[in-house]
Amino acid sequence: MIEIITIGDELTSGRTADTNAAMIARELHAAGFSVQRITTVGDACGDISAVLRTCLPVTRFVIVTGGLGPTEDDRTAAAAAAAFNDTLALHPEALAMLREKLERRGRTMNAPQQKQAMLPSTCTLIANPVGTACGFIMRHENRHYLFLPGVPAEARAMTEFVTGYINEHAGRRHAIMSITLRVFGLWESAIQEVLNYAPALPGDVCLGFYPHFPEVALRLTGHGPDEAAVRDRLEQARRVIAEYLGGYIYAEGDISLMECIGKLLIDSGSTVAVAESCTGGLLSHLITGVPGSSVWFERGLVVYSNAAKTQLAGVGESLLTQHGAVSAPVAQALAQGIRKRSASTWGIGITGIAGPGGGAPEKPVGTVFFALDGPEGCRVQQRRFTGTRDQIKMLSAFTALDLLRRTLLGLPAEVQ
Amino acid sequence: MIEIITIGDELTSGRTADTNAAMIARELHAAGFSVQRITTVGDACGDISAVLRTCLPVTRFVIVTGGLGPTEDDRTAAAAAAAFNDTLALHPEALAMLREKLERRGRTMNAPQQKQAMLPSTCTLIANPVGTACGFIMRHENRHYLFLPGVPAEARAMTEFVTGYINEHAGRRHAIMSITLRVFGLWESAIQEVLNYAPALPGDVCLGFYPHFPEVALRLTGHGPDEAAVRDRLEQARRVIAEYLGGYIYAEGDISLMECIGKLLIDSGSTVAVAESCTGGLLSHLITGVPGSSVWFERGLVVYSNAAKTQLAGVGESLLTQHGAVSAPVAQALAQGIRKRSASTWGIGITGIAGPGGGAPEKPVGTVFFALDGPEGCRVQQRRFTGTRDQIKMLSAFTALDLLRRTLLGLPAEVQ
Repeated sequence: MIEIITIGDELTSGRTADTNAAMIARELHAAGFSVQRITTVGDACGDISAVLRTCLPVTRFVIVTGGLGPTEDDRTAAAAAAAFNDTLALHPEALAMLREKLERRGRTMNAPQQKQAMLPSTCTLIANPVGTACGFIMRHENRHYLFLPGVPAEARAMTEFVTGYINEHAGRRHAIMSITLRVFGLWESAIQEVLNYAPALPGDVCLGFYPHFPEVALRLTGHGPDEAAVRDRLEQARRVIAEYLGGYIYAEGDISLMECIGKLLIDSGSTVAVAESCTGGLLSHLITGVPGSSVWFERGLVVYSNAAKTQLAGVGESLLTQHGAVSAPVAQALAQGIRKRSASTWGIGITGIAGPGGGAPEKPVGTVFFALDGPEGCRVQQRRFTGTRDQIKMLSAFTALDLLRRTLLGLPAEVQ
Repeated sequence: MIEIITIGDELTSGRTADTNAAMIARELHAAGFSVQRITTVGDACGDISAVLRTCLPVTRFVIVTGGLGPTEDDRTAAAAAAAFNDTLALHPEALAMLREKLERRGRTMNAPQQKQAMLPSTCTLIANPVGTACGFIMRHENRHYLFLPGVPAEARAMTEFVTGYINEHAGRRHAIMSITLRVFGLWESAIQEVLNYAPALPGDVCLGFYPHFPEVALRLTGHGPDEAAVRDRLEQARRVIAEYLGGYIYAEGDISLMECIGKLLIDSGSTVAVAESCTGGLLSHLITGVPGSSVWFERGLVVYSNAAKTQLAGVGESLLTQHGAVSAPVAQALAQGIRKRSASTWGIGITGIAGPGGGAPEKPVGTVFFALDGPEGCRVQQRRFTGTRDQIKMLSAFTALDLLRRTLLGLPAEVQ
């Protein structure tokens, strides 16, 4: 049984949301462990000592974050010493790590920083690969207390150690492995519905949903005593998911849809340019978020007015009059116009109604037309999204990118 | 003394971050109350009862969220009854509220929903203005337990009641008021530094920092027995902050920098168009995030390549050769070119190095040139930002918008 304790006045005052507890709980859950309780207290030394002393009887591992920094209100080490009848002592190894990290940043140590090496005398250290404050471990009454810094990036960097430590000291000695599959085009509930038809995943493989609008990451985690067997089961589970979700999975691992498209374009030596209306610059912004995208992205047009559509992308005025700015022919003319004028391999055109105003019975808010013009002609799609203005913009931009990805891979367009 | 308890397996497994605890803590803190401890447990009935029974001796108010829904794993009402030697009973008033809400949505009640009206027999109800599940209050051993639903929007909608309830039952009967000031151009630590020179705020007025990159909201909250006196002190505090932060405050209340600019442009009957390079579409995206922005935003150009700068905004090739694409003259030519070609009142040009690659000793990553061309000539600025690619893009887009805001208001350009 595991408990998490997070420490800081910034948490009890609501100034900062507690992201460490959820992050650690998620990692432990994926590794097959469950967290019984999460407790948050402020920086008062007495409060910290009290919460350390009042764990649940069943608890064997306690993960504590926060209060290890250099300032006067970082009191976790002192509170831990007080809670477990220990005293603070200078740990030469912690001091050496601290000095080395500061020197690497071109700084010298001052007195407040040195405090970070004053830790309970009986503790053992946990190296901090990111920041200056060491973590440490204390044993008390058959419990293991693992103390981590509260800075989220540092706590995250030390969580793999924590999971491994618990795995080992819980006597499980399991291998823990995971795979992340990235999905666009199906939201959480729709993925669940599709997977209801799939065969059960191999035992012990846990499927986690991490929705991050407008996409969902699926994390498969397996654990077991035999590493090769875990890898096999994980691969088996991956194959099941891949078979049922098919082209909706755009990547495996830590890569965005935009990076994925960048790689495909670089591999094929091709480029893209966009003419967007309702997404209003978001499509270009997402593309240019990828470092080095200037190699495959040449220009973008935000053609909000009809005049801009005509002057910048050569959309015929008669098309606009006949079909309206939000129409398949205008999307197609935008894609063809930007492709031709920019001399790019691919041209994307988007026009739609992001709302909340501007809808009409025959073209309600959320109606969006997409066109992708390329070496083998022009592909046009119509979609109808629901959501806020921001959500409709985001869904539209991702749908346009996904149309390009599917075309580059020779996949059919997404089934609506 | 106040404790918060949040309930749900989705929290202890890390599937969902606990936003309710921070939201409630923030509201209480602003009203002058402090939270002693926050505890999170899963959906097991015994765990919930246990945590309800083990409050700190000093605690007088306990706010509990989660586990009030219609499904089988919503067990908070049953756990509360068990913890306080009560039984569940059908509350006709809760049932009536539930039925009315469902009917308003065109639905009829089913058995699982009816469960939401089965509450501890001795409790009193808290109306839920948003969802179907009522909240409720229980008294036990001189403590007040306030139970709210876990759906964040519902918990948020009921927090004002909670603050008022605690205010009254703590015997304080204070009026609580707040003002929000929105700041761009100074980050949290810089605001703090400036305010160190300001006179102390009137007693009881609490200044809260809510940084939301790249801006900071300052929330002034006052409370006291006399409403008029609280309003006076708050106004006095507002004047102090406004005097010291001056033009860095772009708005009061719930309004974005983009909305603020939209209003200024509509009021003056003017329009803007942009030609952006390093921000890559983000500036247009931020502008078009404002509903109705098509009235004052006509078009945007994402001129990533030199060819695009020349063809779309008329930047002279000799300028590019002589000064480089990232230079003040090119920013100016972009602003002048887009303004002229789009026939807008204002033209914005941005060119810079968002990184992580592309930096040089004389123009390191983060170097950005801004130009604003308008009826009275062209204003050019150079800035040097630090941060990730995304952060540099965001800071650049906001700085360009702020340059427009300051010019529209006749304010001096921001001091660097």
